[in-house]
Amino acid sequence: MPSISKKGRNMPQSPIRKLVPYAEQAEAEGKFIYYLNIGQPDIKTPEIALNAVKDNDIDILSYSRSEGSDTYRNKIANYYAYHNINVSHNDIIVTTGASEAIAFIFGSIMDPDDEVIICEPFYANYIAFATAASVKVKPIVSRIEDNFALPAIAEFEKLISPRTKAIMICNPGNPTGYLYSKEEIEQLAAIVKRHDLFLISDEVYREFTYDGHSHFSILELEGLDEYTIMIDSVSKRYSMCGARIGCLVTRNETVRHTVLKFAQARLSPPTYAQIASEAALSTPQSYFEDVKKEYIARRDTLIAELNKIKGITVATPKGAFYCIVELPVKNSDHFAQWLLESFSVDNETVMVAPAGGFYSTPGIGLNQIRIAYVLKKEHLIKAVNIIKEALKIYKD
Amino acid sequence: MPSISKKGRNMPQSPIRKLVPYAEQAEAEGKFIYYLNIGQPDIKTPEIALNAVKDNDIDILSYSRSEGSDTYRNKIANYYAYHNINVSHNDIIVTTGASEAIAFIFGSIMDPDDEVIICEPFYANYIAFATAASVKVKPIVSRIEDNFALPAIAEFEKLISPRTKAIMICNPGNPTGYLYSKEEIEQLAAIVKRHDLFLISDEVYREFTYDGHSHFSILELEGLDEYTIMIDSVSKRYSMCGARIGCLVTRNETVRHTVLKFAQARLSPPTYAQIASEAALSTPQSYFEDVKKEYIARRDTLIAELNKIKGITVATPKGAFYCIVELPVKNSDHFAQWLLESFSVDNETVMVAPAGGFYSTPGIGLNQIRIAYVLKKEHLIKAVNIIKEALKIYKD
Ligand SMILES: Cc1ncc(COP(=O)(O)O)c(C=O)c1O
Ligand SMILES: Cc1ncc(COP(=O)(O)O)c(C=O)c1O
Repeated sequence: MPSISKKGRNMPQSPIRKLVPYAEQAEAEGKFIYYLNIGQPDIKTPEIALNAVKDNDIDILSYSRSEGSDTYRNKIANYYAYHNINVSHNDIIVTTGASEAIAFIFGSIMDPDDEVIICEPFYANYIAFATAASVKVKPIVSRIEDNFALPAIAEFEKLISPRTKAIMICNPGNPTGYLYSKEEIEQLAAIVKRHDLFLISDEVYREFTYDGHSHFSILELEGLDEYTIMIDSVSKRYSMCGARIGCLVTRNETVRHTVLKFAQARLSPPTYAQIASEAALSTPQSYFEDVKKEYIARRDTLIAELNKIKGITVATPKGAFYCIVELPVKNSDHFAQWLLESFSVDNETVMVAPAGGFYSTPGIGLNQIRIAYVLKKEHLIKAVNIIKEALKIYKD
Repeated sequence: MPSISKKGRNMPQSPIRKLVPYAEQAEAEGKFIYYLNIGQPDIKTPEIALNAVKDNDIDILSYSRSEGSDTYRNKIANYYAYHNINVSHNDIIVTTGASEAIAFIFGSIMDPDDEVIICEPFYANYIAFATAASVKVKPIVSRIEDNFALPAIAEFEKLISPRTKAIMICNPGNPTGYLYSKEEIEQLAAIVKRHDLFLISDEVYREFTYDGHSHFSILELEGLDEYTIMIDSVSKRYSMCGARIGCLVTRNETVRHTVLKFAQARLSPPTYAQIASEAALSTPQSYFEDVKKEYIARRDTLIAELNKIKGITVATPKGAFYCIVELPVKNSDHFAQWLLESFSVDNETVMVAPAGGFYSTPGIGLNQIRIAYVLKKEHLIKAVNIIKEALKIYKD
């Protein structure tokens, strides 16, 4: 019998996926589950985007341009201008979600066994994309005690090897909710310049910043045009995860030319989704203000409720819609499974994401979970209460 | 300045793409171009598919299942049953076009420097996907004199090395139009079994078979369940290239489990496109009969017209909608460019695909072009006439 690849065997499966059968079983038993584990917002997609698709007059659904249409890219450039980012449509390549942008970037700048430095905890699929490209993630731990701020630059210096090709950040961070300051971004700028590395920034949560903090994009850095590559997506911004449209933006022409070859190989991004995404750019600013208000209220509720539980630590998120919580448990994989299998309050339970999957250093984060505050306040209160009651009796 | 990857430098750019600026220039000069170079049919997408998208009632466009919904996969399984292929929905993983299926398969079964044997000329992007996965394509030449039939099995035996992981075919073939017989498929079955290799078959043109020939899928082979992986797509079947939906089908559970990990990393295939694709499965059989009739008429016209030109050889296609034509020229890249730059009849010219890009052995196929008969008969007649006139004066 032929065998699969080593790479295929090494592809990680997220710890959340492993919990799915237990959630299905709990539902089959009639339990109600509060899903705090996923980054799928319950916010409505802007009608302007949904209607554009309903009103389309396509009769031949043909391939579109591999890099996205000029009109769409021009409109994206305008959106960036509004956010202090000056780029032309030429700097943008439209992708099938931020996911594909990550894959294209890894392929364009790294060969097998090359390395990318990423602060952990990080979006778990980065490891999957790295594995798919046969490249290595070199993690640097950021700590809950520091609210997951940027680790000391000396930590990065220690990890840089001849195989290092890039430093990658997620800003605001999934799963940390941390928002890097301009100063932190400038520290990174200095180090990539010094060592001739790319600086990749996943900014899919750009819009979700709280408490008056504003987002500073790596594309706002001066003199870094050849070094910076930004990743973006419509998924979270417009609650359009199912569209599958993202983009990557870089002023480095060689990188763009290379990414374009990957984009041409897969022909084009999905047409209907591009129609929705282009229309979504006309979403009124009030939509974002409402959404932001909602997330702040949820976050505040969540943090307040969590802080009522003895023995836990919470990092207060300044952006995105996740937070990491440290629990008085030894193994949150087991705890999360136990919640689904064996615990309920009034026949309701909770699904959380064990944080181990967001670290690549083995053995860290095992007492942490990630909570996505993508549910209404009333539900968050009930869900946190379930966790609180659970911790009273849980033993590991 | 940081530099791109070796892989990125090696990513091929299709020779068609290189011609695009010349086509743009010709159009800017007011010339009309017959596009014989692309696999984008001018056939209307079934209304049932278009309407399903218009009538959707989504309010939150959320991520869908990474492997495609159970309903859609069940319907695909029914479609296959109709085509003599017995599989369950579990054997199917929905992908973002056949393109993504190819990338997932290469990743799942091959590590860097592993090898896949493919008969050339082949779909040019296979090389791009192989390059992206850092794997090597080992080509075997199939010849226009044989109408591009399967080369002798001894040729395959010669190429098999410890790094060979798979033999890949495209059936019916792009760019050859060749349809493999049951006997040819059985010869391949024997050799993959003998050497423990995967047999990958790209069957995106399954529906397009002519002259009473019927398609024999690798999934119809007995006792080959662990070896065979089939690639499919809605792009050509329903003239829905812009949807970006395909799938891969295999009864090998380990392969499926591995592919699923790649699929989960990119979250989900596009939602609107899945709605269109699911509805497209209810397209009445008469649609395909009409489409087939149209393609046969086009093919017959094309071949008849081409045969009027002295000094050329045409391989008569039995499937798909392409044919390879051997011209009395030394370098068809140059000829194709010259057609756009310097030749026209009544201010009309033609864009063809130079065939060099469909071969990976350097230097072969340079006197061949691929013609896609995706235009109306009247246009094909005019286009071939332009080629005929051009050859009278062209010198290379
Ligand atoms: C940090 C981060 N990057 C990228 C993605 C993938 O987004 P997309 O849906 O655009 O592929 C996600 C999705 O959750 C994410 O959280
Ligand atoms: C042989 C072959 N395989 C795969 C593809 C890619 O198809 P899809 O649009 O499903 O990605 C094409 C497109 O032309 C093709 O000709």
